[in-house]
Amino acid sequence: MRLMLLTVALLLTAAGAFTTNRVFAAPIAVGRQHVRNGVLKGVVLNSGNANAFTGKKGREATRLTASAAVDAVGCAETDVYLASTGVIGEPLDASKFEGVLEDCAKRVADGPWIDAAKAIMTTDTFPKGAAATVDLDGGTVSIAGIAKGSGMIAPDMATMLSFVVTDADIAPVALQGLLSEGVEPSFNSITVDSDTSTSDTLMLFATGAASADGQAKVERADDARLGDFRAALNDLLKDLALQVVRDGEGARKMVEITVKGAENDLAAKKIAMSIANSPLVKTAVAGEDANWGRIVMAVGKSGEMADRDRLAIWFGDVRVAVNGERDPAYSEEATTAVMEREDIPVTVDIGLGSGTATVWTCDLTKEYVAINGDYRS
Amino acid sequence: MRLMLLTVALLLTAAGAFTTNRVFAAPIAVGRQHVRNGVLKGVVLNSGNANAFTGKKGREATRLTASAAVDAVGCAETDVYLASTGVIGEPLDASKFEGVLEDCAKRVADGPWIDAAKAIMTTDTFPKGAAATVDLDGGTVSIAGIAKGSGMIAPDMATMLSFVVTDADIAPVALQGLLSEGVEPSFNSITVDSDTSTSDTLMLFATGAASADGQAKVERADDARLGDFRAALNDLLKDLALQVVRDGEGARKMVEITVKGAENDLAAKKIAMSIANSPLVKTAVAGEDANWGRIVMAVGKSGEMADRDRLAIWFGDVRVAVNGERDPAYSEEATTAVMEREDIPVTVDIGLGSGTATVWTCDLTKEYVAINGDYRS
Repeated sequence: MRLMLLTVALLLTAAGAFTTNRVFAAPIAVGRQHVRNGVLKGVVLNSGNANAFTGKKGREATRLTASAAVDAVGCAETDVYLASTGVIGEPLDASKFEGVLEDCAKRVADGPWIDAAKAIMTTDTFPKGAAATVDLDGGTVSIAGIAKGSGMIAPDMATMLSFVVTDADIAPVALQGLLSEGVEPSFNSITVDSDTSTSDTLMLFATGAASADGQAKVERADDARLGDFRAALNDLLKDLALQVVRDGEGARKMVEITVKGAENDLAAKKIAMSIANSPLVKTAVAGEDANWGRIVMAVGKSGEMADRDRLAIWFGDVRVAVNGERDPAYSEEATTAVMEREDIPVTVDIGLGSGTATVWTCDLTKEYVAINGDYRS
Repeated sequence: MRLMLLTVALLLTAAGAFTTNRVFAAPIAVGRQHVRNGVLKGVVLNSGNANAFTGKKGREATRLTASAAVDAVGCAETDVYLASTGVIGEPLDASKFEGVLEDCAKRVADGPWIDAAKAIMTTDTFPKGAAATVDLDGGTVSIAGIAKGSGMIAPDMATMLSFVVTDADIAPVALQGLLSEGVEPSFNSITVDSDTSTSDTLMLFATGAASADGQAKVERADDARLGDFRAALNDLLKDLALQVVRDGEGARKMVEITVKGAENDLAAKKIAMSIANSPLVKTAVAGEDANWGRIVMAVGKSGEMADRDRLAIWFGDVRVAVNGERDPAYSEEATTAVMEREDIPVTVDIGLGSGTATVWTCDLTKEYVAINGDYRS
């Protein structure tokens, strides 16, 4: 089990987005309340045990961890956010966190974030991080984020865990507005295996340190000064989300699925996710097989409006199907060349309306089965 | 490509249930209309090419097959049901059916049904059939059925193809009533991979031959004389459906998932299907890993009402979790013994209401990935 402590001298402004799983883990229940206050002083995160489905013992473990953090960091219990990731259903022994957290607090330094990203890995094969600097109110602020996640990844909130920090001075309600908006085209548009974690957490912190350089506090998410910041934040969230897909358990390929011409954007997203979650589409990608028939099947099973005879499908720039049948100019060779790439763009035109959506998934390989056939034991 | 011709001297009374996939195959469009008439004289079925997503050419192929069948069998075009199964998106050359169907018609005999079951196999590893005899109106009638299906199996209508015949004398509307009722707890309660075929077809035929033995025609599905017949038909449909799951692509184990205590039966079914379609649950079963944490996750991701602290989970007779945490009496040894079985019963009590449902699935193995990573090529 690994432990991470993130702490700052000042109170952090905080915003969060959490799992939609109905049986969320014990720390989520507590943490969600603490984030609602809009400020935090530290985050304690352990990997290896999700402290989910652990009943009364789980709540006690959460309390014990929080109180150890309070002692270590020197703050109120409500100023600490707790996150756990790992096996579900195993009791978490939090008593061993006590000494460790105190040690952590003593050793806290401006260490590279990549160490924190490493600390929260479970089945991840590489640490995930991203950073940007951006103009805000005449000065320059930074945004940096880390993420972990590899399996049990599906919207909504296909994050597992991600923490993003900026030194901009932004009020809680504006911060929450930015995050809620940014999560939809990033972490809510990726899927590895259609399974939704009980621990998904994405948090955005603002230290407000930029106020020392004269940045006037941003109070609202629609503040015109946020233009560049919003764009940079959205790019960073997408970057982190795509790193999660690229490191999907057993994955060797990333698939970008764009659906256009659907009845509306919601329908487009549902169709795109139906394709992205189809085991038959994902195994075909693993086999570098341009099996557009399975894409047709996945469009049809989504339940959204679709007309066989209007569908068109592209792998990369190669149109493989049009007007409800194989493209007359279909070339096996050109298509295979696309399927052999590491990144495979798939475009589907439903031909009915103007709804569009883009989602990302990975292939389904024998390694996914191997990783998850003996993860717990 | 294999071809099957099923034909009878008299007109057959027919009832059908078809795929819910919005981009159903060309033969489905035609066949559905023909079945609506309530009578048929023959069925032509080819495996190897689904004639799905084949546009205008697909419709022409369907017409050509029908006209070849008309010549061979000697009946009206609307008296023929056409079914195709196999690769989606490849044009089907039906011209070669012509001579073959005539040959078929000449060679028609009371051959064993198992030959027909063999003829319609694609990735199936064994032919699927079931038969029963049952009392009806003082006499004895028979019911016999065959099925094919192994992958792209998910409700509703997780059949691929299944044909059931009885010599009972039953009117079309009664036959359709019996079938619509029987499909829900059988073919609509199984899933192999959550993908829905574009060709799913289940048909029930009645030759009416039993009328010669004095059976008075059954006009309504709620006719009291159908008691035994209905039970036997439902058993036979369930038998065929479970054979499909047992032969799921790459499957080594069958999992029976019973959800009780849900808000209502619909919620129970949705939760059961969420568990049955979870790749993480299915890989854990493949690894003989009693990972109830993933069952908890799948309950929560279904979106149906669930309270962590009321959940209880059993593998076989072994209760592994209760009151939202691991059972105090949990025994790894006893649980592992259940997981090592070929048939694994899983029971989940949601603890909220009286809704129940039972569904069947199989494990997700490396062989599933292998079979589907290079099925087309």
